Amino acid sequence: MFMTNCDQASIKTAGLIIIGNEILSGKTQDQNSFFLATELRSLGVSLSRISVIPDDLEIISQEAALFSKTFDLVFTTGGVGPTHDDITMSGIAKAFGVQLTRHPVLERAFHERYGEAVNNAVLKMAEVPEGAEIVEFTTNNFPLVVFRNVYIFPGIPRYLQEKFSLVRERFRTSAFFLKRIYLRANEADIAAILNTIVEKNNCVSFGSYPILGNNDYQIIVTAESKMEADLERALEELLQKLPGDIIVRVA
Amino acid sequence: MFMTNCDQASIKTAGLIIIGNEILSGKTQDQNSFFLATELRSLGVSLSRISVIPDDLEIISQEAALFSKTFDLVFTTGGVGPTHDDITMSGIAKAFGVQLTRHPVLERAFHERYGEAVNNAVLKMAEVPEGAEIVEFTTNNFPLVVFRNVYIFPGIPRYLQEKFSLVRERFRTSAFFLKRIYLRANEADIAAILNTIVEKNNCVSFGSYPILGNNDYQIIVTAESKMEADLERALEELLQKLPGDIIVRVA
Repeated sequence: MFMTNCDQASIKTAGLIIIGNEILSGKTQDQNSFFLATELRSLGVSLSRISVIPDDLEIISQEAALFSKTFDLVFTTGGVGPTHDDITMSGIAKAFGVQLTRHPVLERAFHERYGEAVNNAVLKMAEVPEGAEIVEFTTNNFPLVVFRNVYIFPGIPRYLQEKFSLVRERFRTSAFFLKRIYLRANEADIAAILNTIVEKNNCVSFGSYPILGNNDYQIIVTAESKMEADLERALEELLQKLPGDIIVRVA
Repeated sequence: MFMTNCDQASIKTAGLIIIGNEILSGKTQDQNSFFLATELRSLGVSLSRISVIPDDLEIISQEAALFSKTFDLVFTTGGVGPTHDDITMSGIAKAFGVQLTRHPVLERAFHERYGEAVNNAVLKMAEVPEGAEIVEFTTNNFPLVVFRNVYIFPGIPRYLQEKFSLVRERFRTSAFFLKRIYLRANEADIAAILNTIVEKNNCVSFGSYPILGNNDYQIIVTAESKMEADLERALEELLQKLPGDIIVRVA
């Protein structure tokens, strides 16, 4: 149970598309997923899907179209540089049946930045899906472009983080409340109790995670909701039903 | 260009489905994607997609059905424990329109391991899609189950790694050959040269990756193929066309 009926209306969902052969082939460890997952959570946004896909025009196009339709917000990372494998903009244009076009603001900016060194490869980075807007182009060498609900970020983690920090507040929505219950027990021994609480508390999402190699506790149960009162009530119920001697702490 | 026409026939593809709200909400950093990406690459398998999805029956079912049809091999991680949020087996059963059933070998094994402590939550872990096979159940407390081309792994990284290391050789296929070219240059300055080489070498996949904060080189170009001779020829061509003074090393 990831989202619950009772707070569905207030949930803002997001999908993340990580574009790059280097991730799939294990050459590079993706850092952007974890960064954006934690950022979005802290902003109250429910990240609902992450898809890691190759530098393939057709696949980028299909995934962008599907994600744009399925989620309120879509973030892409990667594939926005000047070389042959940078085809994110083309993929997104194709997804929505629009042309790629040189954005005049970007074209001018690249001419200013590069001067005589400007070439076709640089100007490729000025190409965006027709109708796209420039959100931000003060940090580093990549613009942050949005087309409809799709935010197109560079893949280099430092650049992505710089840009995201400048625009993050526009995504903020009502906060998630979270409690963690640390237990000295095996998951199988608390499953039945947990089930009864889960069934009764539709507005709270519960997770149960075994922890290895810790002497103090062996499970973390998480309880989360956008409704703080519901969360507190469910937590109290759960703590009453669990044997007192297995509860290490609640935080 | 991820896969090329000329070696398409020999490519074994894989898709990876990471199941777990804890990854999407940023509570846990996914370690399994990178582990499996590097392992599969070293085995010659082309990891073509990674999807991170919530603990949601319908979504697990849809993704498993799509991945099973699209890729030669599918790996899932997570959602195989005894609690309410462990619904991977149900999702995969639903994907293929079969029932969940207690596997007699697992049921017996859990009775032996748990003795009098066995309960419904433990026996939930003996449930598999009807027709599934047990690949491995010697390490840790989770079986490795395969249903058709879908390998169902536990989500705890240590457990997944233990199991994968025992079965990895069954996935091995012809190796990838890889060369890295370290360049002192900007991507935009080599893009045109790279493009001509990319166009002429269908059997080789090229990637270009800017590197920040390194004084020695600013780009790594990768060239990869299952055909070693094609790779060597393409590499030689590229090295001849690049200005000699920007080549730092090839490895």
